[in-house]
Amino acid sequence: MTPEEKNNRRWVRTVTLTPPSLQDNTADADRLAGALKVLLKSDEIDIDITLLRTLPDLLRKWGYRARCILCKNRGRWVLAGIMNPDSRSPAAGLAVDIGTTTVVARVIDLSTGATLAESSFDNPQISEGPDILARIHFSAQDGGLGKLNRLIIDGLNREIIKLCETCGISADDIYLVAAAGNTAMTHLFLKLNPQWIIREPYIPAVNSPGLIPAHELGIKVNQQARTIIFPNIGSYFGGDLIAGIIFSGLHRHEETAILVDVGTNAEVVLGNKDWMIACAGAAGPALEGGVTKMGMMAGPGVIDKITINTDTGNIVIHMIDNERPKGICGSGLIDLAAGLFLTGMADVRGKFNPSTCGSRLTEKEGIPHLIVVSAEESATGKDLTISQADLDSLVRSKAAMYTILETITMSVGMSLTDLATFYVAGTFGSFINPRSAISIGMIPDLPLNTYKTLGNSSIGGATMVLSSSEYAEEIEIIRDRITYLELNVNQEFMNRFSAAKFFPHTDVTRFPSVKKRKVKGRGFPGQ
Amino acid sequence: MTPEEKNNRRWVRTVTLTPPSLQDNTADADRLAGALKVLLKSDEIDIDITLLRTLPDLLRKWGYRARCILCKNRGRWVLAGIMNPDSRSPAAGLAVDIGTTTVVARVIDLSTGATLAESSFDNPQISEGPDILARIHFSAQDGGLGKLNRLIIDGLNREIIKLCETCGISADDIYLVAAAGNTAMTHLFLKLNPQWIIREPYIPAVNSPGLIPAHELGIKVNQQARTIIFPNIGSYFGGDLIAGIIFSGLHRHEETAILVDVGTNAEVVLGNKDWMIACAGAAGPALEGGVTKMGMMAGPGVIDKITINTDTGNIVIHMIDNERPKGICGSGLIDLAAGLFLTGMADVRGKFNPSTCGSRLTEKEGIPHLIVVSAEESATGKDLTISQADLDSLVRSKAAMYTILETITMSVGMSLTDLATFYVAGTFGSFINPRSAISIGMIPDLPLNTYKTLGNSSIGGATMVLSSSEYAEEIEIIRDRITYLELNVNQEFMNRFSAAKFFPHTDVTRFPSVKKRKVKGRGFPGQ
Repeated sequence: MTPEEKNNRRWVRTVTLTPPSLQDNTADADRLAGALKVLLKSDEIDIDITLLRTLPDLLRKWGYRARCILCKNRGRWVLAGIMNPDSRSPAAGLAVDIGTTTVVARVIDLSTGATLAESSFDNPQISEGPDILARIHFSAQDGGLGKLNRLIIDGLNREIIKLCETCGISADDIYLVAAAGNTAMTHLFLKLNPQWIIREPYIPAVNSPGLIPAHELGIKVNQQARTIIFPNIGSYFGGDLIAGIIFSGLHRHEETAILVDVGTNAEVVLGNKDWMIACAGAAGPALEGGVTKMGMMAGPGVIDKITINTDTGNIVIHMIDNERPKGICGSGLIDLAAGLFLTGMADVRGKFNPSTCGSRLTEKEGIPHLIVVSAEESATGKDLTISQADLDSLVRSKAAMYTILETITMSVGMSLTDLATFYVAGTFGSFINPRSAISIGMIPDLPLNTYKTLGNSSIGGATMVLSSSEYAEEIEIIRDRITYLELNVNQEFMNRFSAAKFFPHTDVTRFPSVKKRKVKGRGFPGQ
Repeated sequence: MTPEEKNNRRWVRTVTLTPPSLQDNTADADRLAGALKVLLKSDEIDIDITLLRTLPDLLRKWGYRARCILCKNRGRWVLAGIMNPDSRSPAAGLAVDIGTTTVVARVIDLSTGATLAESSFDNPQISEGPDILARIHFSAQDGGLGKLNRLIIDGLNREIIKLCETCGISADDIYLVAAAGNTAMTHLFLKLNPQWIIREPYIPAVNSPGLIPAHELGIKVNQQARTIIFPNIGSYFGGDLIAGIIFSGLHRHEETAILVDVGTNAEVVLGNKDWMIACAGAAGPALEGGVTKMGMMAGPGVIDKITINTDTGNIVIHMIDNERPKGICGSGLIDLAAGLFLTGMADVRGKFNPSTCGSRLTEKEGIPHLIVVSAEESATGKDLTISQADLDSLVRSKAAMYTILETITMSVGMSLTDLATFYVAGTFGSFINPRSAISIGMIPDLPLNTYKTLGNSSIGGATMVLSSSEYAEEIEIIRDRITYLELNVNQEFMNRFSAAKFFPHTDVTRFPSVKKRKVKGRGFPGQ
């Protein structure tokens, strides 16, 4: 795309109108709409009453020129605001990732797509419920939904004030908001009853809410601002995934790729530019939940990387911000499990091997625990350990993940080894070392350069949609093209799950690179 | 149209949805939208956030059935509300004629098109300005626009309460509002700055405001109700005329007809099912204004009909409600002028003829006055008279009207005698006796059955639009098809105007029926 074509896809366009005359006395709004229709090659453009009320005086003041902030919804253009074409204030947009745990907000210059400011904050709804399920239950209480909605909207409004201060703009300069979240978070953001999401047959209030005036959601930006809400495909496949797909570009490529979001749920999309199939991991213990239960959220002093020396069995740890260790997060745990397995300290079933663990193995309340960091070295003054129960839980989680990946690729007659690219979305996912995840058989044994971590692809996709109408149009294309695969936990699925509950898998031939790295004669059973 | 086809054009449709299942777990809103799209053969249907918030619980309560109140705007459907399909409350609509003087409001049953209640009230803006010009000037004052807007909206809201009481419904049952008014009244209704309407080059803020949420206009009906605002064609051709065209059916017929609204302005539409041309009488003294200045508004005791006995010169008057006479309204004045001319009491130039007027002619402050009702017979105890100045003013008004009619028909190469139908719109117009208007040459000498009085065609058209989507679609068709003819007051126009300033016209051959009725040897000049 040439820079000009790119500019033609921005939401901000400056128009110069022919001033009215006796020979050409079209009304102001219709004059502006007419010029925009030509510019946008569109049949219709909506201008709301609030804007109409200011239009005649502003057009005359600006000499029949205007910077127009536009938006498009289901093929129909909307004028979200007009600005003085000679003003230096940017026409801004706000991208929001409505995470269950963390909300990320980013201010964009709509004319260039550049980020002006970014910040994140804990989802304030945590005070009423730590996870999706708890919040949905809370929302069913009298006034519960209203309270959860106010918490997130008020939290976002506080953040908007801070962000605007940071980049020296006014909240009135924000004309577009793009918000992506999972189905439940989106419901709470819109103050929609989420009760039916979690009850069979799992029905959201809406899949595609379309463009909503920001003021109707209580978002304190420009009075005429519109909010693009990323649609969900179902109760377990939310708008954050649509944003993720846009960010990854999976839907633009010839070759088939897979996108996995290892967040609160394990959500998976498989496809290419012609077709897409999606499913969500309601079938097994959710990976992040399963993992972080026994560890802790990433933060200073948390072990995020681990290697175990295969000769000495020495555990080398890395802490966030290099502080003294106080716990372990998901990515560290996967590294640890991989190391334990490769050094033979855990067997193929994920059970601690007393003979190789040696003095690191201890017991608490009858359950074996492995000391990862001794009390002397830890920040807490206590041993940092993981229990056999923790490791069992990890085995189930990684097996669930692998089974989901296997099931979705098999459903289209493909094999996991056919994948050209393996996109890992989500903040948690970005910290996972693919080599470790392969070692325990959580993800398939593909060449390491096949794996691409996307980071927070939800905010990434929301940002892209604010930077170009091209990407906004993709929202609906993806929503219409995607097929949702309901994961039936039938006997076949359970068989695959059982086979995956081994490090790396009962069928070791699927993991040649792991087989190669498995050292010191602590081979696979039967070898 | 069969009754079924007619029902399919109503804004109210009851749908029965397939309840969701694991095999069919589309979201509630998308399920409803899908069913409506099939029913309406439409690609898109908008459901706003307020409605989304109530939808899941209501659909379940009603067993996945719903009475849907729909509306269409520029080819796009909108769901304005849902009702319990088993409820007996009607889904109601409110038609409004925003007259400069009188506002008419009518409650409609959207399912049948039947009128449930109707009333009218003085436009409360009269307190700040009697006519359009005065109100536009008032609106330019600090807070003026807001005040005028509040006056009309508050007045309408008060009327809505009364109307709802009359027909036993709740204001919440009103889901659609259709409002038509002239361009200035529409601006004040929408709180749009009307300043530029009256300043060259006469530019409205908007021609087609589209569908507006009623709550954004402050109209107290259902929270989700939509308002259809009839678009204007220009500053002097308002939405009331579009409503009038729809009511007349002019745009549906093969034969060419003319529609004349003799309200505050003289507005004219000429056309048929293939084309339409319109103009407005800013060229001469406005007829109603010109006439009513010297008389009074219709009301009890006002003379609305007059005949003059050609033998005796005796004036026979008819009063509204048969009360004692206290004044004369426009239609009475036209009758009077016709009688004066036909009996020779006024000459072809509209000057009183002392020899035939006899003792009825008197003089006040040097100006001749004709006594219509003597002091003994009048309700005021004073003579009711019309002055030579009043008659001169009427001559100018009728000449302006005729000239406008002549100019618009000539502009398409037609003659006034080619007209198949002559629709007279507006309350004032309905009281005019066409025979009298022909006698003085205000309207062309067509067979009397050519004239069709429409009454308040503005409320009539608004009602039709609430009764069927077919008529609503016509709004845009008419707006797009109509050509506005700017009346240039050039030499040619002035020549025609001068020729028309005679009873009935300088070219008497245009009025053969008048020539025939002209009696007692008081012939035309030169005869």
